[in-house]
Amino acid sequence: MATPNVNTLWGQTVADELATVGIETAVLAPGSRSTPLAVAFAQHDDIEAVSLLDERSAAFFALGYAKRTGQPAPLVCTSGTALANFHPAVIEADTARVPMVLLTADRPPELADSGANQTIDQADLYGDAVRSYRTLPEPEAAARKLRSLRTTLCRAVGTATGTEPGPVHLNVPFRKPLEPLAAAEPPAGVPDGAVPDGFATENPLAARGRDGPFVEVHSGCTDPSATTVDELATAVEAAASGLIVCGPTDRPAPDAESLVALADATGFSVFADPLSGLRFGPHVDDAPVCGGYDAYLPALEQTPEVVIRFGASPTSKPLRQYLRDADARQFIVDPAGGWREATFTATDLVVADETRLATAVADAVDRTPGSYADRLAELEPGYWRLVEGEEPQEGAMLADAVALAPDPSTVFVSNSMPVRDLDRFGAPQAASLSVLGNRGASGIDGIASTALGAGFGTDDPLVAVTGDLAYYHDMNGLLAVSRAGVDATIVCINNDGGGIFHVLPIEAHESFDKWFRTPHGLDFEPSAALYDIEFARTDSREGFRSLYSEAVGSGETQVIEVQTESGHNHADRTALREAVVEELGR
Amino acid sequence: MATPNVNTLWGQTVADELATVGIETAVLAPGSRSTPLAVAFAQHDDIEAVSLLDERSAAFFALGYAKRTGQPAPLVCTSGTALANFHPAVIEADTARVPMVLLTADRPPELADSGANQTIDQADLYGDAVRSYRTLPEPEAAARKLRSLRTTLCRAVGTATGTEPGPVHLNVPFRKPLEPLAAAEPPAGVPDGAVPDGFATENPLAARGRDGPFVEVHSGCTDPSATTVDELATAVEAAASGLIVCGPTDRPAPDAESLVALADATGFSVFADPLSGLRFGPHVDDAPVCGGYDAYLPALEQTPEVVIRFGASPTSKPLRQYLRDADARQFIVDPAGGWREATFTATDLVVADETRLATAVADAVDRTPGSYADRLAELEPGYWRLVEGEEPQEGAMLADAVALAPDPSTVFVSNSMPVRDLDRFGAPQAASLSVLGNRGASGIDGIASTALGAGFGTDDPLVAVTGDLAYYHDMNGLLAVSRAGVDATIVCINNDGGGIFHVLPIEAHESFDKWFRTPHGLDFEPSAALYDIEFARTDSREGFRSLYSEAVGSGETQVIEVQTESGHNHADRTALREAVVEELGR
Repeated sequence: MATPNVNTLWGQTVADELATVGIETAVLAPGSRSTPLAVAFAQHDDIEAVSLLDERSAAFFALGYAKRTGQPAPLVCTSGTALANFHPAVIEADTARVPMVLLTADRPPELADSGANQTIDQADLYGDAVRSYRTLPEPEAAARKLRSLRTTLCRAVGTATGTEPGPVHLNVPFRKPLEPLAAAEPPAGVPDGAVPDGFATENPLAARGRDGPFVEVHSGCTDPSATTVDELATAVEAAASGLIVCGPTDRPAPDAESLVALADATGFSVFADPLSGLRFGPHVDDAPVCGGYDAYLPALEQTPEVVIRFGASPTSKPLRQYLRDADARQFIVDPAGGWREATFTATDLVVADETRLATAVADAVDRTPGSYADRLAELEPGYWRLVEGEEPQEGAMLADAVALAPDPSTVFVSNSMPVRDLDRFGAPQAASLSVLGNRGASGIDGIASTALGAGFGTDDPLVAVTGDLAYYHDMNGLLAVSRAGVDATIVCINNDGGGIFHVLPIEAHESFDKWFRTPHGLDFEPSAALYDIEFARTDSREGFRSLYSEAVGSGETQVIEVQTESGHNHADRTALREAVVEELGR
Repeated sequence: MATPNVNTLWGQTVADELATVGIETAVLAPGSRSTPLAVAFAQHDDIEAVSLLDERSAAFFALGYAKRTGQPAPLVCTSGTALANFHPAVIEADTARVPMVLLTADRPPELADSGANQTIDQADLYGDAVRSYRTLPEPEAAARKLRSLRTTLCRAVGTATGTEPGPVHLNVPFRKPLEPLAAAEPPAGVPDGAVPDGFATENPLAARGRDGPFVEVHSGCTDPSATTVDELATAVEAAASGLIVCGPTDRPAPDAESLVALADATGFSVFADPLSGLRFGPHVDDAPVCGGYDAYLPALEQTPEVVIRFGASPTSKPLRQYLRDADARQFIVDPAGGWREATFTATDLVVADETRLATAVADAVDRTPGSYADRLAELEPGYWRLVEGEEPQEGAMLADAVALAPDPSTVFVSNSMPVRDLDRFGAPQAASLSVLGNRGASGIDGIASTALGAGFGTDDPLVAVTGDLAYYHDMNGLLAVSRAGVDATIVCINNDGGGIFHVLPIEAHESFDKWFRTPHGLDFEPSAALYDIEFARTDSREGFRSLYSEAVGSGETQVIEVQTESGHNHADRTALREAVVEELGR
């Protein structure tokens, strides 16, 4: 390494140490103060750096990448409001438990509260939304400082990817010169910040690190106690009826194999949220995975006596209400001990790794499915037969988006209506679809960027399905198509405003259209032209199927706009739900 | 007021009380949880509500409005990441001291840390960037609570517009029903949250407030002590040379009249930053206002013995360095007692209202201008004669943008190069130009929105000058042209990347182009088409002058893209600076 000054040394040490712990991608937002970090990441042989111009989109891109890979992509920005633009994605990373490492450049400490340009108080900027915060010491060619730096970086990745994954914020002050200038020739008046001759040879551990991570973080896995497993097993065996509910999570949890074992041993059916990682995949052939519950629960007279819940709170409101009213013994399984059940009717919080727990209970139980499971085994296929081809227009797009997606694919669905429509109309299937969404804080910001980030570094086809408001919110994110070289089929369901508000009582109010549905009248074709992306538009299911089949996996990026009418769609959803209950009820 | 439920009553009380303290504009980002606030603002007769879809842009729009008017436009959003999108503008409002009142809807307290949808910890989300934070109590038709609410709102505006203006954050939890439903017919299972019959008649003060503000906040004004004025006057009279430096601020401070009096009494010249509110205006005919110092300071052999500084740190780096090296007695005048001088060579911090201080010193002093002022009186016109018509292309746009702006106009300039070019090439003139910029944290985010917000509610022509990166960053902000009905002439100086990086030593580095200048190759014409805005493009000064003269004040909105080459412009600036020193030096 050429280390003309301490800032260069510091930046190189950061990039180098992160590479040793397995970091392969970094996301850089341009700026001046972050120069030592940007240069180091850009030049590192083992790290691919992506440069994105809007920090908000950059952060969501890093979020998406980490969602799919489980590995954080360090995020670099300059000082000032740049950091605050990361904040929405930081909150999503916190609430959805996605690894993130923030490296925010800062002015040196003597400029604090001085009115210096682009200088704000960056300490704890994200509050409790990060797992840990540290301001790094001032760069110096001192052995102890560099060993501390390497240790901090290894720990940061360990924390970000630990039992409760999430964001870690390292604030990195730099004093000029920021550029990799030879120490012998600093600009006039600038201290040279030289690295002493022989520093690397005298302090090899600090200057070069170790072969492999400086500190290996050996993350543990929370095992349930034998008592807990016994208690759960006893409850399961005594129950006349039971259910396994898998809520949103960015990795299948429990893993598919242990889920199959658990369903088999307990005889419980599995309600798999579209974002659980378990509604789609080869395991659906081996386990009673249900996906239509949102619609047919009102036709189900029985309730479960025992419920085992994994992941976050399910997207389906009818399911949440059904569980609330079930008077069941509900076990929430969460490796981090979080409580993600907002009706407060669950009875047990099991702090354990989901796969370990599922496997252990499967080993301890042998229960025969009863009439409850039989009824679900009747309802689930009955529902899909009933709705196939009858979906409301917006639901049909989601049904087709997953049904026609190549195996394997990554499918990213926006909040508001798309995820709800996927929940209702995305039938379980054996194709390996990695279906992702931002369901931590459920914002409609950063959707394009998160999707494109999820598609970075893989050849699997990428599909993103978004509503028009979410599409508008993150049009800037489309820059990643060219700058990061990600191809995607982007489906924009355009009902000219917030279709979800039709679902709410405000629909009846005079202020509805202007202040809630908020029609914008935007023609999105120029938004694709701006980024040199193909654009196509349709308002029919046949048109969509044809455009979509051609686009997905073509290796090109296309925006497919589907024009719909949210009021009709809402009415159609309601009518279909009533027909389902009528048809499938006893 | 029809008050079908407590949430409606609460929302109406908020809007009503804010109207009584003079709030005329509210900015609403659509969402569900904020329904009681949105409906109340939308329906209030005395408040104009603007609905903008991207919360980041919405917040900058409110910032711009407050910059020009001095009055906050309450900002309303739903729960979750929506708040975090306000954060960049909140930081700018904090650092630039701009009034802002944030009303963020929240879930009810029982849903805290429960994994409920779109629920995050909103308390203190903006940390120290707000002047005050409060979570409001749960809405209730209780007299004491409503009087507390009215008091809190009056105080919030008082704090936001006080001695150190800035953001105030009120977090507002609501429990369903959120809509203005008649209490008699709530949806099944929803508590009615009824307002008791007769509540308004029994508690008129709480239910209807007072004629006028519920609590009148009488803000004081910091007077300098007689001793301080004496000391300053003595120093001024004893000085062989002196200077008045007016840095960026959103209002002329001191006001023009007292500045003229101060300059007259002290015989000091005035260095007026383009964002000081004092470089342009009728007063420049009555005071020695200088604007070309950034270029000609190297030709000035003398230094001032006394400097009186107002506002934030000047944009001009040569000026900051000149003051640092001057060995002068420097008085920083700041009404809030802030320290905005990052070279740490100032000697006195005068905590006083700028106008009061200027007037008091003017009254106490009678000093004849000396050779230093004479030299400046020679340099200033000499500089403008020298550069007129010789500006580098990008500088010429700024020179023309102010020279050709109608009187009066609002001119908003972006950070990075435009504000620096305006500093160098915007000659003082007597036209009433309200020149604004985001110089608090100097971000390039939110520029279009801040500019359009500044143009809201006035018929004065609005000009916004931005670079291409800032233009890209806030393209979403252009939606305000149609949704808020603001007309603007938007000048986008497109040098395809970060021209400012040419100024930095990184220019010489191999990574420069890809990672710092970051060319994006975007053709911005479709961005204007997306918002149905006229678009024109030129690469010549004549072309620009012609397009600009036609567009500005036409009552239509137009984006004028000026294609430039940043490397050449940087070289031209350097060459011009050398020629100026050569020509004007003795």
